[in-house]
Amino acid sequence: MVQLLVKEESKYWINIANSLSTELAATAVERDNQAGLPDVEIQRLRETGLLPLVVPKEYGGIGATWAEALKIVQKLSKADGSIGQLYGNHLNLTALAHVSGTPEQKERYYRETAEKNLFWANAINTRDTRLKITPDGEHFRVSGLKSFGTGVAIADLRVFSALQDGVELPLLFVIPKDRTGVASNQDWDNIGQRRTDSDTFTFHDVLVKKDDILGYPHPPDGAFSTFLGIIAQLTKTYIYLGIAEGALATAKQYTINQTKPWITSGVDSATQDPYILHHYGNLWTELQAAISLADKAAIQVQQAWEKEANLTLEERGEVAISVFAAKAFVTKVGLDITTGIFEVMGTRSTSTKYGFDRYWRDLRTFTLHDPVDYKLRDIGNWVLNAELPLITQYS
Amino acid sequence: MVQLLVKEESKYWINIANSLSTELAATAVERDNQAGLPDVEIQRLRETGLLPLVVPKEYGGIGATWAEALKIVQKLSKADGSIGQLYGNHLNLTALAHVSGTPEQKERYYRETAEKNLFWANAINTRDTRLKITPDGEHFRVSGLKSFGTGVAIADLRVFSALQDGVELPLLFVIPKDRTGVASNQDWDNIGQRRTDSDTFTFHDVLVKKDDILGYPHPPDGAFSTFLGIIAQLTKTYIYLGIAEGALATAKQYTINQTKPWITSGVDSATQDPYILHHYGNLWTELQAAISLADKAAIQVQQAWEKEANLTLEERGEVAISVFAAKAFVTKVGLDITTGIFEVMGTRSTSTKYGFDRYWRDLRTFTLHDPVDYKLRDIGNWVLNAELPLITQYS
Amino acid sequence: MVQLLVKEESKYWINIANSLSTELAATAVERDNQAGLPDVEIQRLRETGLLPLVVPKEYGGIGATWAEALKIVQKLSKADGSIGQLYGNHLNLTALAHVSGTPEQKERYYRETAEKNLFWANAINTRDTRLKITPDGEHFRVSGLKSFGTGVAIADLRVFSALQDGVELPLLFVIPKDRTGVASNQDWDNIGQRRTDSDTFTFHDVLVKKDDILGYPHPPDGAFSTFLGIIAQLTKTYIYLGIAEGALATAKQYTINQTKPWITSGVDSATQDPYILHHYGNLWTELQAAISLADKAAIQVQQAWEKEANLTLEERGEVAISVFAAKAFVTKVGLDITTGIFEVMGTRSTSTKYGFDRYWRDLRTFTLHDPVDYKLRDIGNWVLNAELPLITQYS
Amino acid sequence: MVQLLVKEESKYWINIANSLSTELAATAVERDNQAGLPDVEIQRLRETGLLPLVVPKEYGGIGATWAEALKIVQKLSKADGSIGQLYGNHLNLTALAHVSGTPEQKERYYRETAEKNLFWANAINTRDTRLKITPDGEHFRVSGLKSFGTGVAIADLRVFSALQDGVELPLLFVIPKDRTGVASNQDWDNIGQRRTDSDTFTFHDVLVKKDDILGYPHPPDGAFSTFLGIIAQLTKTYIYLGIAEGALATAKQYTINQTKPWITSGVDSATQDPYILHHYGNLWTELQAAISLADKAAIQVQQAWEKEANLTLEERGEVAISVFAAKAFVTKVGLDITTGIFEVMGTRSTSTKYGFDRYWRDLRTFTLHDPVDYKLRDIGNWVLNAELPLITQYS
Repeated sequence: MVQLLVKEESKYWINIANSLSTELAATAVERDNQAGLPDVEIQRLRETGLLPLVVPKEYGGIGATWAEALKIVQKLSKADGSIGQLYGNHLNLTALAHVSGTPEQKERYYRETAEKNLFWANAINTRDTRLKITPDGEHFRVSGLKSFGTGVAIADLRVFSALQDGVELPLLFVIPKDRTGVASNQDWDNIGQRRTDSDTFTFHDVLVKKDDILGYPHPPDGAFSTFLGIIAQLTKTYIYLGIAEGALATAKQYTINQTKPWITSGVDSATQDPYILHHYGNLWTELQAAISLADKAAIQVQQAWEKEANLTLEERGEVAISVFAAKAFVTKVGLDITTGIFEVMGTRSTSTKYGFDRYWRDLRTFTLHDPVDYKLRDIGNWVLNAELPLITQYS
Repeated sequence: MVQLLVKEESKYWINIANSLSTELAATAVERDNQAGLPDVEIQRLRETGLLPLVVPKEYGGIGATWAEALKIVQKLSKADGSIGQLYGNHLNLTALAHVSGTPEQKERYYRETAEKNLFWANAINTRDTRLKITPDGEHFRVSGLKSFGTGVAIADLRVFSALQDGVELPLLFVIPKDRTGVASNQDWDNIGQRRTDSDTFTFHDVLVKKDDILGYPHPPDGAFSTFLGIIAQLTKTYIYLGIAEGALATAKQYTINQTKPWITSGVDSATQDPYILHHYGNLWTELQAAISLADKAAIQVQQAWEKEANLTLEERGEVAISVFAAKAFVTKVGLDITTGIFEVMGTRSTSTKYGFDRYWRDLRTFTLHDPVDYKLRDIGNWVLNAELPLITQYS
Repeated sequence: MVQLLVKEESKYWINIANSLSTELAATAVERDNQAGLPDVEIQRLRETGLLPLVVPKEYGGIGATWAEALKIVQKLSKADGSIGQLYGNHLNLTALAHVSGTPEQKERYYRETAEKNLFWANAINTRDTRLKITPDGEHFRVSGLKSFGTGVAIADLRVFSALQDGVELPLLFVIPKDRTGVASNQDWDNIGQRRTDSDTFTFHDVLVKKDDILGYPHPPDGAFSTFLGIIAQLTKTYIYLGIAEGALATAKQYTINQTKPWITSGVDSATQDPYILHHYGNLWTELQAAISLADKAAIQVQQAWEKEANLTLEERGEVAISVFAAKAFVTKVGLDITTGIFEVMGTRSTSTKYGFDRYWRDLRTFTLHDPVDYKLRDIGNWVLNAELPLITQYS
Repeated sequence: MVQLLVKEESKYWINIANSLSTELAATAVERDNQAGLPDVEIQRLRETGLLPLVVPKEYGGIGATWAEALKIVQKLSKADGSIGQLYGNHLNLTALAHVSGTPEQKERYYRETAEKNLFWANAINTRDTRLKITPDGEHFRVSGLKSFGTGVAIADLRVFSALQDGVELPLLFVIPKDRTGVASNQDWDNIGQRRTDSDTFTFHDVLVKKDDILGYPHPPDGAFSTFLGIIAQLTKTYIYLGIAEGALATAKQYTINQTKPWITSGVDSATQDPYILHHYGNLWTELQAAISLADKAAIQVQQAWEKEANLTLEERGEVAISVFAAKAFVTKVGLDITTGIFEVMGTRSTSTKYGFDRYWRDLRTFTLHDPVDYKLRDIGNWVLNAELPLITQYS
């Protein structure tokens, strides 16, 4: 069972995260320009010791709860949405074998992650069906393409899904960085989350060993085995929160230091402008509402997590609804904030040197991961009809 | 120090409140039509034993925290906004001598409320300056008018504020129901919160004894003595929450049981309509965000309350900001919900027999108590300039 | 062909409408309280000469275009939404035989309306299928129920739809007030549009003559014959506009004359409050956008009207899309305005004596006539897929 | 007096603009990437003959009204906001001497613009007070800095404002491209409107002749002489409209051709998704409302323009209010659309190769020109208090 970090320990890691966040913020605009491989950043994550954050203590990890871990994802995302996403994905994946693997895989991957300080990445995206897996003796061979491989190029352990002829569900497997035949197409060039290096990967007859396949031969059944999908949705929520929070904090510094009062405002300083004050009041209030809603969902997620195999489908579904609500809400609030900050900063804040548009670009890009409308529909269907969301990669 | 109710005890009072809420809901439409004196309802509150809810156990009360008490205010408001307001005001007033009175008054009023199961009401409204107090020997005489006396007509203990010539701050005093010379003008006839009987009262040379005046001769100084104003703001917030929650719950029953699918919707039941599901998803999500934000503020309020005289002005101000954010946010969400429910119910839901407009009328009326714009301004001023809100009756 | 009124003539009727609007505004709150039969008001409409407004001059009418006529509907609705609805429906119905009748019916009803100064009303609502028509010799008999008979009780000519066994489309017929067997159930008691007397009517074996049935035996085919449905949608739009305009105009007078400046606003008058000014700027701007959009649609409607039988289905559909856009837009704007006016008036504006909630109640009730979501869907389907809206009573 | 173009002529120029718009759209993403000098584009504008669009026919120009001209600005902005801005500014400036110059200057600049097919640009921005003008014999010398010189680097005629010691109002002057001493700092590198080359310019003792100064020695008085400021505000409005329209049109093509239906949508094509249809319906409706409002303001602007010296301050103010309403409204709608298009396109639409974020970046940048909040305040002040907006460069 994952235990709560004691208060001292918790503070320690929060300080580490704060300090890394400050470091990352200083160079975020530059990274947004360059895009490219987040090699230095992953190295810094490794050095801080934050990689095994959710690996239970019994396997040598830090043993943070999801509620604790996601606040750290938020902190890093405040500085740089790309790094927040890479780190959030990584945390989710370190627990993948716990929900979907065999007991041996759970033990092996938790322990290895902690001991070797490993970084995880994936290209699971089940809507992309171009990657095929074929039996080859007692092992397998994989060929084809897989898109959206966020951070895969520099990951120590890489997770993919592939389809086998005649098998309905995709197989999930984990392979190490040095497994030959996997090549990045280096085609990630998007308007936001630019430093995630979410390339398409080409597989040329790649060996996948039997025990690289998670839960093979019998993938686990039940609510818990698909629960990481819900945690992944909440992880995205905290990355959005971090981006929105970063936008508002940056705007505040700019308004205080740079914005001039408007000529007919009758005030001496932009910080006394009644409309600017009202906007800050409004945007901050919305952000707090989003944070409160997400934090409540995080507690529910953690409670569900601790039930492991006892988690019922009904409990899973109800937590999913809370997570969807938080995700839908922060999407709306985040877009309001990342657009609205310019109103309180003024014309000159659009200079490229500040890079303030990156907040909107990052959030706009990443909030399209899966459509908010269907999250709201799922919520409505539960509120009105008491129906649980269909279990998919996204729900 | 106010202690947390033990879990069992807490459940007991929640069950009492639930049951009273159900009872009140059944007759809420009728009461909205009649307006008039909430005599029966106050009697029911008295019978349930809920009146001394926040009176500390050491004085014979139930000893609930504010966080616990406000959830009960929300529950009653879900059934009937008027009763929620009467009860919320009452709870605030039972603690008035604790913050603003002498130690003797604190003790006297707490004990008396618990022992005699007393109901409190007030007309404090400091913007109305028509009530004058004049020394008369060692006591005082009060004459003039005071508006917005919610529930005063049937209260056992009545709190008013009056101005004395040459004294800047108004004096607050508590008089019993049988004190002669106080008459209701029976002029409350408003579009919402119709059963609060918030009349104007006329005072004809009313005797106010020296020790009826709170904190006389030296009204207490410091952050704690004005902190009940912040609790009162949060109490309003929970009444708004309750009204909004009641609206959504009622709409849900109607959509399920009455609403017909639209002719071009292609679905067999309104409960499968994609837009109706989306609306429910959206309104419910907003409500959850509002609840989360309010609940977080309630915890902060309780923590501040427990500091008593040690509460600093800075701490008071920061809690005030959280409370204002919750209040501003639920105002917006509540108006969305009480207007939006009709979209998911359809044309026939406007029949007067359902009285579904009462949610909007109640919320619209009560959210005008003090302007949301200035709450948002106060928040912005704190976010941007780290300035605490000016201390007034409303902030 | 309907011609434009010459400028002088147009001014004349606008003045008549203005003056009637002022007269109606003075007693609107009282009527909202009483609900009941709009007998006096219809009598006033008759006396002003406004009843044959869209009857072409060649039949003795005033000959206004729809664009001109709907501005007069807006003006009356500004004073009283109920009267606006009764009058708007009446105008539509006076042209019903023009689109759906035989040439003889068109001539007969136009001429009769002008000569005898007749008032029309209807209960067509095709979703209510309880009214049955049965052949009886060369004529027909009608029995059953029909809801939403706005103003029918006092109309000179009454239009209904009924279903005949084995016939898919409902038959539309016009019967005079003195036709026996039609009784009002006097069951209209709704939260808004209270003075429309939109009762359910019971038919006991009512005689309907062959030539009472519009377009009998061959109802006209093609785009023009169903075009009145689109005009009816635009007529509703102008009633909504009028209600919203009335709300804002009334609020303005109240703010100027009654609203007190807020205690921390730093201004001497509510009319100088920065947030109140901003709200008025915003609400007025939205209203102007809605008016502009509706006025553009009205011009398109008039152009389509003048094409008569030459109107193509494509032209009909495109005009419908413009009308739907105006209707959807003013619904949103109108709800914003009728809720928002209270923010700029303050607490005391909720007194029942002002009746300011009637704007929201009227608009909320009448905008539910048919769901806005499906109007937006129809628009989207046309924008994205170039598909015309399905022809129904509502589209 | 400016006359209406005859229909044929009007069509001719609209076709020219359409064709140039299509041409510009094909390379807009590339130009957004490069930023830099819009030399080729201005050359294309010159070749199309569109430069003297608002120069009256009597001076050899095309003689379009403002209402006609602004629809062409909208068309070009639909393809590329930067070119729309350069062209809109140019049109305004070609009429500058008409309002602010002597009769000789009006004649000279109108005639010269038409004969030599000249392109105008400016850096007037009166909030930047760093440019100083000093008498030097019968002429003047100018030194200092001036920011936001949109297109100045490649303009044939350049307009600036500078301050003279002891003179309150800035002097406006027009100098040709070859006047020595003016240098671009090439410092425009902003997130949007990237191809406007809005550099800061440094003046080194630049000669300004007496008759380069507009209206020297006596700048004209009255409402008309400052009316170009209002036209400039409406010109911005049409550029915003064009950008928003371009965004929606581009999204439509993408949704039709690229977007995949969501996995739980139950439809075969994204174009049948109920939420996507609803979004299109909503965004298109808002756009139409904005267009209608702007077009109405354009007619008022043209009517006011034709009054010339007879234009009263009251008339000027009322037209300003209409223009402000259009500008504020389209700002809101445009931000909704340029953010919302991504919801209806999906994840892959964020690829940099499409450059769909340029719509938001362009609009976000240019709508900060002067704060919308103060436009709304001005409107509110007129609605509530019948006060005209203060005359400034922006109002």
